[in-house]
Amino acid sequence: MPRHVDHEERRRKIAEALWRIVSTEGLEGVSLRTVANEAGVSMGLVQHYFSTKDDMLLFAYGILSERVEARLLSGQSQGSQIRTLFLQMLPLDDERREEAHVAVAFMARAAVSPAFAEATRAGDFKAHLADVLRADGVPDAAEQAEILLAALDGMTVHILAGQLTPEAAVKALDAHLARLGSG
Amino acid sequence: MPRHVDHEERRRKIAEALWRIVSTEGLEGVSLRTVANEAGVSMGLVQHYFSTKDDMLLFAYGILSERVEARLLSGQSQGSQIRTLFLQMLPLDDERREEAHVAVAFMARAAVSPAFAEATRAGDFKAHLADVLRADGVPDAAEQAEILLAALDGMTVHILAGQLTPEAAVKALDAHLARLGSG
Repeated sequence: MPRHVDHEERRRKIAEALWRIVSTEGLEGVSLRTVANEAGVSMGLVQHYFSTKDDMLLFAYGILSERVEARLLSGQSQGSQIRTLFLQMLPLDDERREEAHVAVAFMARAAVSPAFAEATRAGDFKAHLADVLRADGVPDAAEQAEILLAALDGMTVHILAGQLTPEAAVKALDAHLARLGSG
Repeated sequence: MPRHVDHEERRRKIAEALWRIVSTEGLEGVSLRTVANEAGVSMGLVQHYFSTKDDMLLFAYGILSERVEARLLSGQSQGSQIRTLFLQMLPLDDERREEAHVAVAFMARAAVSPAFAEATRAGDFKAHLADVLRADGVPDAAEQAEILLAALDGMTVHILAGQLTPEAAVKALDAHLARLGSG
């Protein structure tokens, strides 16, 4: 009886291997060979699932986004919404550090590649931030959502680079939200 | 009579070639070969001036930082200081787009490399922002300086990725500064 092959699971394993490489070496460390080695599979198998490196990168980013989204949905029960969202997204523990590394590598790629710019476009999230701010009575909600999203990405980079401690990031976020009146 | 060779000028030409590559292809496009081609010199000459790729990247970042700093110093004469500084740094024209591409590529690298994290550490600039805020009577100046710096880097990435227009960035910045009471 032929063993059932879970293709989705295999693609996911390869994507997770890719994340690990990106979080220690950045996108520059990613190649067919390094990903196959890290995933413990053959280069042929990686090529079977992903026809190009970009195809692999975009798939890996997609399932990472799904993971973040699932966590956000499960964590939205209590407390002030924006603070809760941001504490779920900033790289404050190992799991989120890995995600953040992938996010930052993709940000840099988005600056020079339309496909990556499209993949990292946080339109829905930005609209959600603006909605929350509006509900909190913030009159310039659209502009403040832009600043919040920019600050989130900037703080993420600064934390990963060791230029900002997680504690200082949370303190700055709280100071900012206090001023917004959307704590 | 031997012709005088301006080594500093040659290194600078190589660095400028590197910037042009980074602004169209990102760090991934940078190699000994591509930089030599773009600069119109031999690979041997590039190797003569830079013993490693990182050595070349860090030098290129250094002279770009000097250029930004010179522009900031010359532009600090009038208007509200933080707004003026930020309008000089956001990628609102071609020269600053090129600088921003290099800055974003380095940010991503800083997330995985201590040498790049050190090179991109904006400690003096952050302290200056905090001083300006403090002089404007902002009580939580240190935290607000973190948010400003993070928002600057985040907006830079979003503009380059086409996710934020320059006009929307300036509008968001103005809304934020108005709330800070440091316009």
